[in-house]
Formats: sequence, C-alpha cells, structure tokens
Amino acid sequence: MKFCRFEPLQRENSSPPQARYGLLAGAEVQEIHGTPWGQWTHGTRSWALNEIRLLAPVEPSKVVCVGRNYAAHIAELGHETPKEPLIFLKPPSAIIGPGEAIVLTRFSKQVEHEGELTVVMGRRCAHIKDEEDVRPYILGYTCLNDVTARDIQKAETLFDRAKGFDTFCPVGPHIETELEPGDVLVETRVNGKVRQSGRTSLMLYPVLYLVRWISRMMTLNPGDIIATGTPAGVGPLTPGDTVEVSVEGIGTLGNPVQAPRE
Amino acid sequence: MKFCRFEPLQRENSSPPQARYGLLAGAEVQEIHGTPWGQWTHGTRSWALNEIRLLAPVEPSKVVCVGRNYAAHIAELGHETPKEPLIFLKPPSAIIGPGEAIVLTRFSKQVEHEGELTVVMGRRCAHIKDEEDVRPYILGYTCLNDVTARDIQKAETLFDRAKGFDTFCPVGPHIETELEPGDVLVETRVNGKVRQSGRTSLMLYPVLYLVRWISRMMTLNPGDIIATGTPAGVGPLTPGDTVEVSVEGIGTLGNPVQAPRE
Repeated sequence: MKFCRFEPLQRENSSPPQARYGLLAGAEVQEIHGTPWGQWTHGTRSWALNEIRLLAPVEPSKVVCVGRNYAAHIAELGHETPKEPLIFLKPPSAIIGPGEAIVLTRFSKQVEHEGELTVVMGRRCAHIKDEEDVRPYILGYTCLNDVTARDIQKAETLFDRAKGFDTFCPVGPHIETELEPGDVLVETRVNGKVRQSGRTSLMLYPVLYLVRWISRMMTLNPGDIIATGTPAGVGPLTPGDTVEVSVEGIGTLGNPVQAPRE
Repeated sequence: MKFCRFEPLQRENSSPPQARYGLLAGAEVQEIHGTPWGQWTHGTRSWALNEIRLLAPVEPSKVVCVGRNYAAHIAELGHETPKEPLIFLKPPSAIIGPGEAIVLTRFSKQVEHEGELTVVMGRRCAHIKDEEDVRPYILGYTCLNDVTARDIQKAETLFDRAKGFDTFCPVGPHIETELEPGDVLVETRVNGKVRQSGRTSLMLYPVLYLVRWISRMMTLNPGDIIATGTPAGVGPLTPGDTVEVSVEGIGTLGNPVQAPRE
C-alpha cells in the first residue's frame, strides 16, 4: 500500500483546507479516516492527483537520523567509521512536503543535500529483544532529504543546529508499505544530474539493526521516522535548483530551493 | 499563575485516568479546559494536591537545549567557550514528570544530572526581529533535568544519544508565568546535598537572547521548551538516589533514580 497525506486544492467551503490521509491507487487518492499508523478505515471519497496537493506523509513526534552509515560518505567527509550507529535528531518543525521549497538561511554559505531511505514506525516499541522480529513495528518507508548547513556542521561539533533549520527536512512523496529495504538504490539528483547514488546493501548498519538498536535507547512511537544515512556524493544547493531524492521501489521526492528570506 | 498537568488518583469510572491541565492555587488545583499555551477556560472542578498526581507540565513538539551557557560548567568539562549558543535537541519521548523515576541504562556507566531553568513557549514564533519584544511569545518557566550519559557524550561527538534515553528529561513541577528569569538561583541537590548552584545572571547568553536566536533557525511552537544550560557541579546519579532541581521563584522538581531495566 501507498499511504499519503494531502489537502484538496479546491476548498469545499470557507474553512481552510484540511489535511487528510489517503491511499494512492494509480492516479487516484482514496481518503482514509484515521492515520496510517493507528486505527483507520476506508473513507468514501476519492480525488484525482491533479485535484490535491501532497503534504509530508508523516507528523512524527521525533525524527531520528543516523549519521555515517555508508563507508563512501564517511570517506568523502574525512570522518572515522563509528563503532556504533551515530544518531542525532532533527526537529519536526523542519519537515516540509513534496514540492515545498527548501529555504536557505543567511547563517550558512554551504547548504547541502543528503538523500536517505527513511523508516516510518507503525507500532510503539522500546527495548526490542534480539530474538524478536523488528518488522511488525515498521509501517513502511519513504524518502527524506537531510538538508545540512555543512559549514555550521563543521564549525560546531554538534549536528542539531546545522540540520535543524525550518524546511531542512523534506519528506515524501508517500509511505510504501511493501518495500524490502535491504538492497535498493538511493539516488539524489540536482537539476536532473545525479549527485548521490548508493545501494542500501552498502549500509554499515542495516535498517532492521538500526530500529532494534534505537528502540533500546528511546521509545519509538507510531509515526516516528528514522532516516538511515546518506550515500556518497553530498553537494551544495543554490537558489533556483530543484533537488530530487529517489528510492527504488518508493518514488521521488522533489523540492525547489529558495534564497534566504532576509 | 502556576499551570500544571495532572491526573486524579481516584478513577471516576472504569476508564483509565485522564491527564488534564490546571491552575495551582495554594493546596488546590483548579481544572482548566484547553492548554496553557492555547485557548483555555476555567473548569468547574478542583482537587486537593493529595488527590492528584502531577505530570510533566508540557507536551512539546520539541525540546531545544542550550549547551555550555555557564562559564564555570564549561571549565569543569574542559570545553571551549562557544562563539555562538550551542544548541541540541532531546526527544520528547525522554520526558517524565515530577516524582517519576529516572531509569539508568546499561549502555552507560556514568549518568549525570544537569539542572536547568527552562522556557515554555506560549505563542508560535519564527525570525523574531531585533526590535521586537521576545516576552509576549513566552508563556512561563519551569525546571528541567538534562540527564546525560557522560561517558557516551565524551565518546561520541554528538549529544543526542547521550541525552536522549527514555526518562532522561524530567520536567516540572509546574509552569510559573510570573518569573523574571534574569537573576534567579538554579540549584541541583542529590539526596539533599547541593551539587550544582549558579545564578542565571552568570549565563553567557541570557534567556531572551536565546529565544530570539533560536527562533531565527527553527519555528518555535506553543508548548515547545528551551532548556537554558546548566551551572557547574554536574555529577553522577546512582540507583536509590533522589535528585532535585530547584529554580528560585518556581519550585522543585524531584525524581528518584532506578537501576537499568535489563
């Protein structure tokens, strides 16, 4: 199944457009009542894709990210290979949806893309045991662009500010529940040119390992997301660019890039 | 005013206890409908303090923390003084309320307390201008214990895992809306002995500066919290300890410490 979140382009009355969840089926979206990670039922309405605007398909209580999870990306930034997964957080306030603009910031002269396969949790979990199957806790997968002010990241030891600016977390276009994440291509293109390309089979710590490991530190709630790290090839974004993150078996998340607002 | 969040100890029917917000007045809590950072009205019910259990007074979409904001604490950890505020995030899943147990983790042999004055945002804000008054965006202040696995923090360059374990973010006991935060005492005691003590006038970056500065990176939502850094004197917590964080003009947040659960 492909879950999405959307709002109708045409207002039904004077009230503001209301975000809804739905199921993508061909060129149509069928409304659901509830959330993909909770109780939900089929609604009666459907929309053509040109009647709606897709929103970020998640509203997580936290965005957990994994750093340095592909050897070639570690090499390009000159980092050491971590002995354990390196995790950090992005604030939910940074999330935007497909087609929304990544707005650069005057605090940085070097904002870069990092395309990533991202897990969407379906069930609350904590302290998942070695012998327990992780998969029932996962709802599905989506694409995420871990936009990063590289100069701030290098100047500070911490990542949170460099990666936490508003609009620095595009997510989408939808959640794919059928994906087998072990060996799919993750690709990032800027203005159509391939910048990053790597298969998830090259991850130092694979997806199911990461979910189990993180669950032993922090309770993962339904709808929480885990970005699983970026392949080699990170590079700068400039105003007017369009950046696309594709994950094989899911789809493409595209976002334009805008100059700082002041 | 003093806003709190609570649940009645005695169930009214077979349903689980329901968390509510209220106003503390002497030894009584008067229920409010709504949230302190949104629309609210006075309810008709009130409870004696011994009829309720206080919960964490906030349910933030993010917990922003400021590191290295007191010179004496920077010196004790051997860090450099940051040229700009150093910010990081704690996951909301780490939040616990007054009296709840801080549960140590088998991943760390050195878990420490960090008592902090904490801002509770009242209104959504972004890019607050130099000439604009920050105070109307602030609802009030509370106490927070930025519990930290110091050995993990030292081994990794990032703070997020070291500070993100479940129960590592006690908050409370209530939100004080009347506080003038510029020069109040922040004190942390373990088993009654003073461990940390410092006045907020010693902060490198004062409260209003921090809120304005952070708003220029990330939109602050109603109910979001900002922990403003810890004074010198951080030290270890061991099972059986009781740790208390007091902020002059607010009150005391006390939490017992428990051994790891596995």
